[in-house]
Amino acid sequence: MACEFKIVRRVEFGDTDMAGIVHHAVFFRYMEAAETAFFRSLGLSIVSRQSQPPVGWPRVHCECDFFAPLQFEDEVEIHLLVARKKSKSLTYAFRLHRVAGSERREVARGRVVVVCVTALGSKMKATKIPKAIADQIQVATARQLA
Amino acid sequence: MACEFKIVRRVEFGDTDMAGIVHHAVFFRYMEAAETAFFRSLGLSIVSRQSQPPVGWPRVHCECDFFAPLQFEDEVEIHLLVARKKSKSLTYAFRLHRVAGSERREVARGRVVVVCVTALGSKMKATKIPKAIADQIQVATARQLA
Amino acid sequence: MACEFKIVRRVEFGDTDMAGIVHHAVFFRYMEAAETAFFRSLGLSIVSRQSQPPVGWPRVHCECDFFAPLQFEDEVEIHLLVARKKSKSLTYAFRLHRVAGSERREVARGRVVVVCVTALGSKMKATKIPKAIADQIQVATARQLA
Amino acid sequence: MACEFKIVRRVEFGDTDMAGIVHHAVFFRYMEAAETAFFRSLGLSIVSRQSQPPVGWPRVHCECDFFAPLQFEDEVEIHLLVARKKSKSLTYAFRLHRVAGSERREVARGRVVVVCVTALGSKMKATKIPKAIADQIQVATARQLA
Repeated sequence: MACEFKIVRRVEFGDTDMAGIVHHAVFFRYMEAAETAFFRSLGLSIVSRQSQPPVGWPRVHCECDFFAPLQFEDEVEIHLLVARKKSKSLTYAFRLHRVAGSERREVARGRVVVVCVTALGSKMKATKIPKAIADQIQVATARQLA
Repeated sequence: MACEFKIVRRVEFGDTDMAGIVHHAVFFRYMEAAETAFFRSLGLSIVSRQSQPPVGWPRVHCECDFFAPLQFEDEVEIHLLVARKKSKSLTYAFRLHRVAGSERREVARGRVVVVCVTALGSKMKATKIPKAIADQIQVATARQLA
Repeated sequence: MACEFKIVRRVEFGDTDMAGIVHHAVFFRYMEAAETAFFRSLGLSIVSRQSQPPVGWPRVHCECDFFAPLQFEDEVEIHLLVARKKSKSLTYAFRLHRVAGSERREVARGRVVVVCVTALGSKMKATKIPKAIADQIQVATARQLA
Repeated sequence: MACEFKIVRRVEFGDTDMAGIVHHAVFFRYMEAAETAFFRSLGLSIVSRQSQPPVGWPRVHCECDFFAPLQFEDEVEIHLLVARKKSKSLTYAFRLHRVAGSERREVARGRVVVVCVTALGSKMKATKIPKAIADQIQVATARQLA
């Protein structure tokens, strides 16, 4: 049972735009990377090619608040917390910090709602989260989510 | 004075992911394209290289609700509406529809808050929207935003 | 029968990087956009979901020479020419020009080799280009390709 | 003095396209990541914000041969080798392998030529590679490059 996961990654050149900072859409790529790593940490995959039936996790909502810019070669910690777990959906909260030595600066907060579906593509259908997955995921405490 | 703008674009191969649909982060690229086209339609540019001082428009918040997937070669209309105008920030509402002949299907709604800043990069500072820009932008009506 | 196609597109904010110019990898997105538009112009699609068997066109080689940078809001013409047509592959030559009024400046040249395959994904297998497609595509003249 | 560098990274969901494999343009992002990590390993940065004058490294040529597809969550080793060093330019050779336990499969080879310039953006000018950088980089042996 897990309710959170952290990854650290370094801002790449191609993540930046002409403003000299990480493009806002890239923050969702960072959050997705934390989400897929969270699943891997549980021995699972976001893309359950082998499960029967295979399920996928399209987003029905995503959002991000930006507090400070990220720049090339900054190290950023992406902290995923499970904020809500329903029979067919999960809500993740994300906290992004720029980390440099002992300094930590919160740069963004995100929130992403994903739905478990069968048959990705044009004919997606919401489905119950398979027990083998649901059993491993629990909601973070109110304190963690504060 | 303008309060809205529409563009239509076609989903590109590189916009898709292995689920066979447009990757969620790409929706923010679509909204940004409508925003920059809105500025161009007013004879302005998001990147005011020539203005003194130059201003930029980093996002402080962005979000999207997804109702239906977009696929390769779909045509998508991105409708920008100015939802709010403050002295230093603008809020845009976006409505995305898949259009095919006379059929229209709403696929997503977005909301983006941008702040006018000087000196993009690491030392951004919020500033009043220059009058030449502010004078051309007005808030959409409640009916339009409904 | 067609041997060439042209599209014009405008550089988007998200196409740029912190150097203030279009990121080099994005040039391949531009070429791909011309290639998919070329297919559409022939009533075809790069993704032949309906054909039996469906075929795809992964790249086996791509390259680009860069002569001048592209910047945000530049208009760029992407000219595709069919440089070679074999039973299972096509080679495209690309000429990219920045266009501004009557001015034209060549900014890049590309070359892309695609192979016709069945069963995209992990088990791709080269296959003969379906006749319905091959019949519509011809090689450009040496003069055009010069 | 260094002539090569290796990084390993995992294919992300957003790196894939609807064919279920890593989009070809993303391979250039992978090579760039190895190049910037190579510079960091020497105590340098591709973006020499502090050097006088600052220099940048735009590409004048890049190419890639693709031998096998990469899929989501594959681990890929990107091996950079310095193939050529001239007064104002560097040529890198790249070897990309999918690695899974003890298995290694070459999936792509790349070649990238970068030029050292001052004043990135619209007025780039080729310049001699600063001695502090040039002194740390040497060309790989013919055997390494074979």
